[in-house]
Amino acid sequence: MGKTDWKAEAKDLKHKLGRAKRKLRAADAEGAAVAAPKPATKAALSRSPLAPAAFPDLPAIAGVRFAVAAAGVRYAGRTDVTLIEIAPGSSLAGAFTRSATRAASVLDAEAKIAGGMAAPHGAAIVINSGNANAFTGRAGVASVAAICTAAGAALGIPAGAVLTSSTGVIGEPLPHERIASALGPMAGTLDGGAIADAARAIMTTDTFPKGAAAEVAAEGGKIRIAGIAKGSGMIAPDMATMLVYIFTDAAIAAPALQQIVSREVDRSFNCITVDGDTSTSDAVMVAATGQSPAAPLGNPQSASTRAFADALGGVMRDLAWQVVRDGEGATKFVEVAVTGASDDRDAHRVAMAIANSPLVKTAIAGQDANWGRVVMAVGKSGAAADRDRLSIRFGPHVVAENGARAPAYDEAAVSAYMRAQDLVIGVDLGIGSGARTVWTCDLTHGYIAINGDYRS
Amino acid sequence: MGKTDWKAEAKDLKHKLGRAKRKLRAADAEGAAVAAPKPATKAALSRSPLAPAAFPDLPAIAGVRFAVAAAGVRYAGRTDVTLIEIAPGSSLAGAFTRSATRAASVLDAEAKIAGGMAAPHGAAIVINSGNANAFTGRAGVASVAAICTAAGAALGIPAGAVLTSSTGVIGEPLPHERIASALGPMAGTLDGGAIADAARAIMTTDTFPKGAAAEVAAEGGKIRIAGIAKGSGMIAPDMATMLVYIFTDAAIAAPALQQIVSREVDRSFNCITVDGDTSTSDAVMVAATGQSPAAPLGNPQSASTRAFADALGGVMRDLAWQVVRDGEGATKFVEVAVTGASDDRDAHRVAMAIANSPLVKTAIAGQDANWGRVVMAVGKSGAAADRDRLSIRFGPHVVAENGARAPAYDEAAVSAYMRAQDLVIGVDLGIGSGARTVWTCDLTHGYIAINGDYRS
Repeated sequence: MGKTDWKAEAKDLKHKLGRAKRKLRAADAEGAAVAAPKPATKAALSRSPLAPAAFPDLPAIAGVRFAVAAAGVRYAGRTDVTLIEIAPGSSLAGAFTRSATRAASVLDAEAKIAGGMAAPHGAAIVINSGNANAFTGRAGVASVAAICTAAGAALGIPAGAVLTSSTGVIGEPLPHERIASALGPMAGTLDGGAIADAARAIMTTDTFPKGAAAEVAAEGGKIRIAGIAKGSGMIAPDMATMLVYIFTDAAIAAPALQQIVSREVDRSFNCITVDGDTSTSDAVMVAATGQSPAAPLGNPQSASTRAFADALGGVMRDLAWQVVRDGEGATKFVEVAVTGASDDRDAHRVAMAIANSPLVKTAIAGQDANWGRVVMAVGKSGAAADRDRLSIRFGPHVVAENGARAPAYDEAAVSAYMRAQDLVIGVDLGIGSGARTVWTCDLTHGYIAINGDYRS
Repeated sequence: MGKTDWKAEAKDLKHKLGRAKRKLRAADAEGAAVAAPKPATKAALSRSPLAPAAFPDLPAIAGVRFAVAAAGVRYAGRTDVTLIEIAPGSSLAGAFTRSATRAASVLDAEAKIAGGMAAPHGAAIVINSGNANAFTGRAGVASVAAICTAAGAALGIPAGAVLTSSTGVIGEPLPHERIASALGPMAGTLDGGAIADAARAIMTTDTFPKGAAAEVAAEGGKIRIAGIAKGSGMIAPDMATMLVYIFTDAAIAAPALQQIVSREVDRSFNCITVDGDTSTSDAVMVAATGQSPAAPLGNPQSASTRAFADALGGVMRDLAWQVVRDGEGATKFVEVAVTGASDDRDAHRVAMAIANSPLVKTAIAGQDANWGRVVMAVGKSGAAADRDRLSIRFGPHVVAENGARAPAYDEAAVSAYMRAQDLVIGVDLGIGSGARTVWTCDLTHGYIAINGDYRS
């Protein structure tokens, strides 16, 4: 054997020691994030570090009332059933998961709402948390029917005007009689100001309730919009799902409302990802009561209709961002902005490939300006791309351009930027005018701890 | 300043590194309180718990010789350049990543090998680890040309018959002169028995070298096949990539070899995933020297050709499984077998949706028989599926059938099964005869620790 090269050996060891030290620091930082005791449910986990300071003050929407109850569907000692009454003359619209294994409640609500749903006699939404009533076969269909019948009877409206959502564990029979028997008494406690209670009752693994609102100065008067959401991953531990309910006093026919909802969902909820996993139960429902003094909306050319669509889109984006900020284990909120793609569809593919890449997401968790992984994600997306026209920026810092590292790349400055809580990854493909922005969070030990635990 | 005592320095650093490693292990043990079971992190680069007992005894292939060198591309104190000489009269075939941002070496090798490459004057493969020469612009193209020219000169063959691979960090200029200047001396040390040295020299974040072999009793004599691979994720820390080199003494024309390689790659390497992230540099190269006494192969109907294709496919599957078993942070090896799909393509989509789902992979890490997450992954795959015909089994245990939990479901028995190191998830869609089997590993704290660290 040859003589040992101690200098090389020392250099190698120094390198390894540096790496081990950095890992130790990272492990220490992680310790803070997952220091809470065994997360049998995320309820035991602390509020997300990305949570807003407080639940916003949401305006009452004329024609909409809320009631909540603790029916013991799965959890003890917390509200788990929500009843929402929507006044006669309202219009409803919705968007639902495209999963091939979607839950019975989703199939039922989808069929009722398709293309927009007019509610001359009023409508209702019943939501339970704790059990998703998904993959429960024929029994699941019967559960939905029983809940719709009970809600219809409690409110004096047709069962066909009742929409339901269920969120929680998959594959367990839903104890629907507990929900159905709670609805009568709940009808007596309906309250137009109780939307915050509803935001709490629909939570599962969320660490904070989510709400957003907007006002539109429209022709003839003010229009109000208020919405709530739950979600902490496209799907979470066993339970989860993203559910969104938005209410407005705007007057608008159901088909026109559906058109606006479809477009704005595409630009908000369809542009977020926590882990790329899609729930069997995702649903967005929007109800417009028409009780505002403003003139009826609907003409896509009118300034009021456009202002309303923009405001509704803003509420959706706000709620979507809150879902990402409550992403399981999230410590960073990341905007991925793709421009210069051959079309918007390709831009979306590239943005989602980056936002869903485990290697990009772990690099962000490690505050590592690892733009090579962004190059990798662009490459694997399947979208048209030309390596030599690609440029990448982290916030204001151009890190790569013309198919190579940027000449002005300053590792220290970029590394400092990566320590921020909110980050922007910008990618320009340089081949067209397609653009898309999506939002995601990082992938941390917290995610593994929450999801790699035994089912409880 | 006096002369540094590098030996003392190395000793001191070794001591400090040992201490840091012990601290890291302690920090990991703390983590075990929140997630079970806790994998040994790859930070310490300990051998994967799923590694085979030893590197196999690979036969020499007549017409193929190997040389390795420590050229200091990036690492100190280890071999990082491999030169493989392939005899005149050989046929070569290959398969490469479809990434839109693939590296210069991949583009060059692809162009040379397209459709199968005859090598009347012989051929060579040069591989370096430590630097991927990816996203390095025009300079990267020049580096490949310089290496091909140097290898051609060293072996007395045309530069056009030299294929290269580079694996390691993305976006750093490749110090190709270190590689080029090593090739001349290396040509003097070529050795037909040194394939195991090559398996080690191509490693980056791998925790064990990977090799596999087969023999075929063909018409006229025995055919030998021996292959090596590296890979520890579709792409890993900064470095990584899957690289595979397989050699045989079979006599077969290049186009026929290419056909067999394309088909067998599709059934092996295209059926594995660690994290769904695709490298910019993945490459599989196969060389057939024709020096076996067996009769020439090529007729797809002949028994010998079929036996050869099966044996080659077997070697590929063996190497592919070893890559999964060395998956970053892996503690479980998982086979996902999908049947009853409307066609094989749909079966592949469903199998990959399950194998890439972070929620399925974390559940497996947690030894949780969480079949609801499998239902979710089937639903999101985009493949045709009918919830009410779907059945799912974990090993021999049917957990769900006909769109609901199996009546005979025994949670205790299934939970016991989940504690095994090798697992099978079976999904029957019940709507057609499409089938596909893929292989993956679990998603653990080890993956986060390896990839969420700072770039060094």
